[in-house]
Amino acid sequence: MHNTIGGLGEFALITRVTSQFPPTDDVILGPGDDAAVVAAPDGRTVATTDLLVEGRHFRREWSTARDVGHRAVAQNFADVAAMGARPTGLLIGFAAPPDLPVAWAEEFTAGVRDECAVAGGAVVGGDMVGSDTLTIAVTALGDLQGRAPVRRDGARAGDVIAYTGHLGLSAAGLALLERGIDGPADCLSEHRRPSPPYARGAEAALLGATAMLDVSDGLVQDLGHVCRASGVRIDLDSAALRPEPALLEAVAVLGTEDPGEAAEAARGLMVAGGEDHALVAAFPPDADLPGHWHRVGLVSDAAGTPDGGGGEHEGPVTVDGRASRREGWDHFRRG
Amino acid sequence: MHNTIGGLGEFALITRVTSQFPPTDDVILGPGDDAAVVAAPDGRTVATTDLLVEGRHFRREWSTARDVGHRAVAQNFADVAAMGARPTGLLIGFAAPPDLPVAWAEEFTAGVRDECAVAGGAVVGGDMVGSDTLTIAVTALGDLQGRAPVRRDGARAGDVIAYTGHLGLSAAGLALLERGIDGPADCLSEHRRPSPPYARGAEAALLGATAMLDVSDGLVQDLGHVCRASGVRIDLDSAALRPEPALLEAVAVLGTEDPGEAAEAARGLMVAGGEDHALVAAFPPDADLPGHWHRVGLVSDAAGTPDGGGGEHEGPVTVDGRASRREGWDHFRRG
Repeated sequence: MHNTIGGLGEFALITRVTSQFPPTDDVILGPGDDAAVVAAPDGRTVATTDLLVEGRHFRREWSTARDVGHRAVAQNFADVAAMGARPTGLLIGFAAPPDLPVAWAEEFTAGVRDECAVAGGAVVGGDMVGSDTLTIAVTALGDLQGRAPVRRDGARAGDVIAYTGHLGLSAAGLALLERGIDGPADCLSEHRRPSPPYARGAEAALLGATAMLDVSDGLVQDLGHVCRASGVRIDLDSAALRPEPALLEAVAVLGTEDPGEAAEAARGLMVAGGEDHALVAAFPPDADLPGHWHRVGLVSDAAGTPDGGGGEHEGPVTVDGRASRREGWDHFRRG
Repeated sequence: MHNTIGGLGEFALITRVTSQFPPTDDVILGPGDDAAVVAAPDGRTVATTDLLVEGRHFRREWSTARDVGHRAVAQNFADVAAMGARPTGLLIGFAAPPDLPVAWAEEFTAGVRDECAVAGGAVVGGDMVGSDTLTIAVTALGDLQGRAPVRRDGARAGDVIAYTGHLGLSAAGLALLERGIDGPADCLSEHRRPSPPYARGAEAALLGATAMLDVSDGLVQDLGHVCRASGVRIDLDSAALRPEPALLEAVAVLGTEDPGEAAEAARGLMVAGGEDHALVAAFPPDADLPGHWHRVGLVSDAAGTPDGGGGEHEGPVTVDGRASRREGWDHFRRG
């Protein structure tokens, strides 16, 4: 009876799983040896890593295994895109209790495979071990294609702030799930399977982005990193933060009936909600941005904030000139 | 009171930890952005990942935090070395309960830093999250310096098998710890902090190695992977397996008094014990091997084994022509 991974065994499961991953042109040596070999055409490789822990980053009752596979890939290749790079390779560490159904591992694998196909990267290696806590460790690699990496420290006074992708939908989806509400679908699906605009990372680099990151902890909190690294302030224009229809619908379902209040609640989720993995970047004021880059703010110099970017609690990022009290979260404090 | 990581908080801990990691010439962009950028001078990067789970791969009562830091780095850069590559960059995912002492995280960091200095690689990124199970995910990157990777599938009939590094000491150390015995020190320390011969990976490539891996699950089991990948058999010569004095001493302490039995028990640990992270390779018969490469076996063709390398249970690796019944282990089955 091999319907749990403990019954099937490590090596059989690895064989079954790795056979699902097609190579790409970037894969010089794929899974199965001590290490993989991945192309790094311009002599550099972009690398980032994330952990997903059951009960903290996903719940098996709220997300399917396939969703978790999609999400594990998405949040890591979003980081690669946020450097202005193209996704190439992925390594997956999988720690699971022996009673995990084989079907869960296989559906997770299918999600990883499908999101890799969307992002353009390939699974090149991994590790599989036993653990009481289902934990997924993903490392993503990328190719800068000869360009300079778009860091967090290049924003300058006068730059415009623009984002592309979704904002607030994932946070709304989480709020809906917490209340047991089964819609709107776009918010639930964005929470379960965020859809980062991978290719727009490289696009931003070509458009002259001076700083960029992906929104994982909330727009205000994440832009705070740009402010501190670049020594600037950023003011967001609430009128430019236009909630998507699904987000307004979610806010209404969540109990905010008044249209004015609903719009404000939606903007609250847009500036404080994380995990959509939108890309947000600073561009020179004369940048010729395509319509899918939404201008939402301006960079100014840090004069007036004695520590060169605002204290951790007052915050260097404002909305309509006022402090935003909606912050992201600290993983350990949430405990 | 910030003596637990939950009290200190994620961002403060990350700042405190990352300040410990010096960059190297391979680090183009280090920790602090969405992703790191690491040099890949010959247009390729070697990449491998491993998970270490408390209670399965280490115990806080048997290993110090510093030991665990050393080990996490060692087992990953050993995989890089086993491809014939030079260690370059390291990414560390750290999942920990909020009540973990800050001191543990700091000592772990010191172990990582010191082992990186030995191996020649640099920490370039990571992630830190909460979890009920202390789990460490390490991804190591490496540089092949223009050489072909030394894979598992290149061994040919007539090749000699040779290893460098320690064999059996870590397994002996584990057996000693399980019985509460505080010596011999070399075995305990090899279990707590394996010392892979990193630079000899590249050396083996230059000496013409046709296949190579690091010994993590036991010599017989790991060489089985070479046999299956290369379509060969390997016979080890027990007379050539010369136990180190510390290993013989450990076997005596563990209760094997008879000298003949002790030598046999020591060889048993050498062929079945894992986690020393010795390097074992196949070389052409005329390879001019330095003395620290110990010749211990021969490669023959797989004729006579119908499936081209032996079934999983009979095994393509023999000792003095006989099946070795000492196998490594399967992580989930032990789970």
